[in-house]
Amino acid sequence: MDQRVEELQRRCVARPGVLSFAGGLPAAATFPLAALAAALGETERDALQYDWPEGREGLRRWIAARLRQRGADVAADDVLVTSGAQQALDIAVQLTLPERRRVAVPEACYPGALELFSAAGAELVGTAEEADLHYAMPAVENPMGRTLPRAERAWLLGRGSLILEDDAYAELRFDDEPPPAPLLAAARDRVLHVGTLSKTLCPGLRIGWLVTPPRLRDAGRRAKLRADLQGNSLAQSIVERYLEQEDYDGRLVSLRSRYSRGADALMGALRRHIPECNFEAPEGGFSLWVTTPEAWDEVEVLRAALAHGTSFDPGSSFRRDGAKRPFAMRLAFSTLAVDEMEEAAKRLARAFRDLSRQRTKSSA
Amino acid sequence: MDQRVEELQRRCVARPGVLSFAGGLPAAATFPLAALAAALGETERDALQYDWPEGREGLRRWIAARLRQRGADVAADDVLVTSGAQQALDIAVQLTLPERRRVAVPEACYPGALELFSAAGAELVGTAEEADLHYAMPAVENPMGRTLPRAERAWLLGRGSLILEDDAYAELRFDDEPPPAPLLAAARDRVLHVGTLSKTLCPGLRIGWLVTPPRLRDAGRRAKLRADLQGNSLAQSIVERYLEQEDYDGRLVSLRSRYSRGADALMGALRRHIPECNFEAPEGGFSLWVTTPEAWDEVEVLRAALAHGTSFDPGSSFRRDGAKRPFAMRLAFSTLAVDEMEEAAKRLARAFRDLSRQRTKSSA
Repeated sequence: MDQRVEELQRRCVARPGVLSFAGGLPAAATFPLAALAAALGETERDALQYDWPEGREGLRRWIAARLRQRGADVAADDVLVTSGAQQALDIAVQLTLPERRRVAVPEACYPGALELFSAAGAELVGTAEEADLHYAMPAVENPMGRTLPRAERAWLLGRGSLILEDDAYAELRFDDEPPPAPLLAAARDRVLHVGTLSKTLCPGLRIGWLVTPPRLRDAGRRAKLRADLQGNSLAQSIVERYLEQEDYDGRLVSLRSRYSRGADALMGALRRHIPECNFEAPEGGFSLWVTTPEAWDEVEVLRAALAHGTSFDPGSSFRRDGAKRPFAMRLAFSTLAVDEMEEAAKRLARAFRDLSRQRTKSSA
Repeated sequence: MDQRVEELQRRCVARPGVLSFAGGLPAAATFPLAALAAALGETERDALQYDWPEGREGLRRWIAARLRQRGADVAADDVLVTSGAQQALDIAVQLTLPERRRVAVPEACYPGALELFSAAGAELVGTAEEADLHYAMPAVENPMGRTLPRAERAWLLGRGSLILEDDAYAELRFDDEPPPAPLLAAARDRVLHVGTLSKTLCPGLRIGWLVTPPRLRDAGRRAKLRADLQGNSLAQSIVERYLEQEDYDGRLVSLRSRYSRGADALMGALRRHIPECNFEAPEGGFSLWVTTPEAWDEVEVLRAALAHGTSFDPGSSFRRDGAKRPFAMRLAFSTLAVDEMEEAAKRLARAFRDLSRQRTKSSA
């Protein structure tokens, strides 16, 4: 990320009263703190000890069962519990990109994945190009919020190449249907599948997972050992008990409804207050990908937004070449309440008006 | 690790009644489960949200203050909270070994570090040789349990090269003095310093840290972002409260006394039951490094030990070239109770007797 952008955003977080569209965080109000604390109360001392790198068996069984429900042939032993989806991506990169390779990524792509590919020395190309590894979020893309169209999905599965499937938002689609079959179900031997509880339970527990083709399973465990020996076993143990005792699917229904209402509220507010901006209605997830006809400088817009008490994630950090143009921004609807969204959109509208006025002046 | 060894050890853990010297784990009986659960009860919902990569400020302040007490010029902002010491080592390797380099390691070295250096393509050499990076555990070496002799310490600080200081056991020295000044205090701009709460509080929380020379600080945060975005903020928050409310230094006094008694018990039992074996009295830590005059095959010894209901870590995994000879083993005194240690030593003695008998027979 641009150092200036990080600096601006750190300042923003430290300032009270800011209503931010940045970060793409889940809503803290939904975190089941009391239930997790109760689960810790029942946890046994062995959960504080060292554990095997693949993670606790009960949790791995639960993850495998959910993937089987969606048609993927996965056993508990195939699951590697990781420190969030990000570590699953890191390990997947270590397993598949030993040398500089071509990696295909969506036009607007999760920045944490871009960072990993770049650090591995990969050459980044567009989704429709030939590549050694295709990174995809077929169920719900971040930041676009769209589901991979059927034709693109078929094209992807038709390649012989490896696929890194990031399923982070799969259970947060707004259509209330069961999540679509993962690519893993269609190509078990070519797909590295990444999941997480960060979006649906809470990020602070750092529970994610990686399922690799069977031939890479042991290498995955060794990579996890090298990285940090094992996941947080206390957090895993808490989550195991939580999942035994609580209605996780019921929780998902209520989260989908909440975030879907959030998306509607943000789209409505944007149409009212910044009618010139463009976006597509998301099919799930936490955010909109917003463009404008005007060619704004994203750091200038961010500075103006902060001056008015709001913030967003600039488009460049989602692009494989870091391009700042055309202007785009990710606006998350996941953290703000509906009335806050209205106010934040007004603030953003004021920021754009300020910039328009300056532009008119300087060209006058 | 040798696949056969891992297989044998996994089977051993699954079998009840085994009294194992393997693993080098802290004693689970010392884990402050109730106090940690109480701390979670007081934790706020923000501890479950995403956080900055460097970790929670209160915890970083505490770590920096303890390092300052030992003479190192460290501020909270210099500390990167990691997922245990292992991740701190991994990030340190990423920051210092971009290309194949020479790394100097002790003759018997922590295997998790060896794995990282090898995966980075480093050439491994002995401690006394010139190298680009020197890995050292100056306060207490794992597995040897010794403190780095003054002359070796001076030699190390006299080189111009980078030092990776693994301080995991520094607070578990048996002399009841404050821990020695870290190398970090003597060479702030050349030492990457690694610490952890895994040995003194519990491993399951996965709390470790890395302090780098200031010029590498931002790169360290970026590496943490790539690796897993951030540490487990729930665990960090629990530990922050625990450290505010509990007597951590009093805890250390009791742990040192416990592990020192464990070391005495193991040494006594070995002298009684396997008098031919050699070891030096450890100055701290969890283990003895034991050799024998006889040239045993370590996998055979391990198999015989398991047949008698005990286990150990074979010496080869601690050696930079993986050499199986001369025969050596790490025996941990940290998990077994004093009477169990006696029994486990008897079992190990029986294993050696079996092997002697077989050898006599086959040479007859």
